[in-house]
Amino acid sequence: MTTPRKRATIADIARRLGVSKAAVSFALNDRPGVSTDLRERVLAVAAELRYRPNSAALALGRARVDVIGLVLNRPARTLGTESFFPELMAGIQAGLAETHTGLQTLVVASLDEELAAYGTWQSAQRVDGVIVVDPRRDDARIALLDELGLPAVQIGSHPSDDPLIPSVWIDDHAVATALFDTLFELGHRRVAHVMGPLDFEHTELRRAALRECAGRYRAPEPRSVETDYSAEQSAEATRSLLQDGGRPTAIVYDNDVMALAGLRVAQELGVAVPADLSLASFDDSIAMRLVRPSITALTRDTYALGELAARTLMDVIATAGPVSSVPAMPPTLSARESTAPLTDQRGGANTSS
Amino acid sequence: MTTPRKRATIADIARRLGVSKAAVSFALNDRPGVSTDLRERVLAVAAELRYRPNSAALALGRARVDVIGLVLNRPARTLGTESFFPELMAGIQAGLAETHTGLQTLVVASLDEELAAYGTWQSAQRVDGVIVVDPRRDDARIALLDELGLPAVQIGSHPSDDPLIPSVWIDDHAVATALFDTLFELGHRRVAHVMGPLDFEHTELRRAALRECAGRYRAPEPRSVETDYSAEQSAEATRSLLQDGGRPTAIVYDNDVMALAGLRVAQELGVAVPADLSLASFDDSIAMRLVRPSITALTRDTYALGELAARTLMDVIATAGPVSSVPAMPPTLSARESTAPLTDQRGGANTSS
Repeated sequence: MTTPRKRATIADIARRLGVSKAAVSFALNDRPGVSTDLRERVLAVAAELRYRPNSAALALGRARVDVIGLVLNRPARTLGTESFFPELMAGIQAGLAETHTGLQTLVVASLDEELAAYGTWQSAQRVDGVIVVDPRRDDARIALLDELGLPAVQIGSHPSDDPLIPSVWIDDHAVATALFDTLFELGHRRVAHVMGPLDFEHTELRRAALRECAGRYRAPEPRSVETDYSAEQSAEATRSLLQDGGRPTAIVYDNDVMALAGLRVAQELGVAVPADLSLASFDDSIAMRLVRPSITALTRDTYALGELAARTLMDVIATAGPVSSVPAMPPTLSARESTAPLTDQRGGANTSS
Repeated sequence: MTTPRKRATIADIARRLGVSKAAVSFALNDRPGVSTDLRERVLAVAAELRYRPNSAALALGRARVDVIGLVLNRPARTLGTESFFPELMAGIQAGLAETHTGLQTLVVASLDEELAAYGTWQSAQRVDGVIVVDPRRDDARIALLDELGLPAVQIGSHPSDDPLIPSVWIDDHAVATALFDTLFELGHRRVAHVMGPLDFEHTELRRAALRECAGRYRAPEPRSVETDYSAEQSAEATRSLLQDGGRPTAIVYDNDVMALAGLRVAQELGVAVPADLSLASFDDSIAMRLVRPSITALTRDTYALGELAARTLMDVIATAGPVSSVPAMPPTLSARESTAPLTDQRGGANTSS
């Protein structure tokens, strides 16, 4: 057991440095008007005296640790291929900034590990709450978080069914319908979809949206191919779509890496984009706009989504009662060189059965 | 002041659930052979009893918080364009896994904010140590960390000059020399370099390496253009290199985004790659291998680098004495479609001036 000792105050730091308490406070709170040199000296003395800025809150007996958690359930080695997580994290940080709350991240490789992490974080009091991403059907995480009593916010496809876990949500069905409609309005009827795994809720929502669009336009039953989000499986799916009979005149990919892989396969097979084939992606990235032809994509403000999720979680943590779900800004379509009206395409008439 | 209450033990959890202590321990430590159902029940009871797995260590009076920090000094909105940070973070997590230590990240937009973050983390006892990236010339961070007494490891270009901060390092000068040499060996003499900001140490090391290579091959003084790492500045630099007299036959880019932007500019200007121009990148990414032509790049094992940095930092935290710097695995060259011998290039003879 450690004996509590008298807490250092701002006055102690000011006395030690021979400056005003206001100057110390400004330096500690990173406000303008303090030289870098003074700020560093203040921080050094604060560290030496073990000054704790949140001592007032601690004295009130609050159990907060001023950290929230985010579990990244992806194979660690492929994490760098997606821009979603770093952008989300940056937005979360922005949403936390004014509450002086930190973000703790953990990379796991399975749902079981993710569940275990929430248990450990709660039992070891590592975090005040968590942000949950990639909603699943019959999501075991929501039940566990409720059972643990760990404050949480979900980033989802629709308002949470479980009022104990509010969502920051985008209507993925409506967004997918808008993207597929764009292609049908350009005259395409054979539209294919290279999907991610179907155990993610939004994958199924997108597949249903395509089927409904095709029905409305009296188009043939669309082909949707499930993949693991990798470039390899996308290349294989694209090759098979382009070489089989009833070749699609447009293909939509569930992420940017798969769209890049699909474009390369089309180029290798001599299928000109967009003259013979239109391509689009559900995820945007810098490569989508730099590759030639640039690829039409849905541009999401993932940063704003992270910021909103963090603010909503801070509300959950601060509030005893329930917090409402919040709709996030829907993505916008960035039309680029990879999509064209079917009449402009050489393959406007059926090129094969 | 809170009154310490008796700590919950594994035996308490086992008694409550009517299972063996071994089963509880296995569930808490996420070992195989425990059903998901039991693991969840164990975690729920552990949370309810406020069981702390590290109670033994805490009882020894250790002041650790079992979290390390990583500051990401980048404009938050552009963080998603680089694959370096998510890969590094995943590797760091892997290196921390067996010590049950978490990773706290903070996105900042300036060196001043980064310095302030270290001060706050130390004074508020938020982290046990930090990993410092992007070494700078006359690095103010090293001096501050030493002054704060905050354990740190630097990811650097050479062993740290300051033995108080060990480095996990890659010899950036040797690596750059190998990449530029590859192009000179292919017969190129007018090799240009589209660089990042010169206040990063490795930028200057690379520029010097190119100048030395050019000298060894009696080639003309190479052109090195400083940029802010953005696609926009790379496009501008590439356009100017390709349109001015003495056009380079090879261009090397400091990152993958700039290489993509450069390839697009070459394609727009009708400069065929690699027939008229070879391109290479200091950073690899999935886009480098999916774009057509695919781009020759140095492939770094950023994941392994993060893992090594985390293990080294845990050594620093655990050890009273100094810890040695550790060389990391150098990157390997992934030769792809964007580079070719000069004799194969149509522009083998001077195309201008």
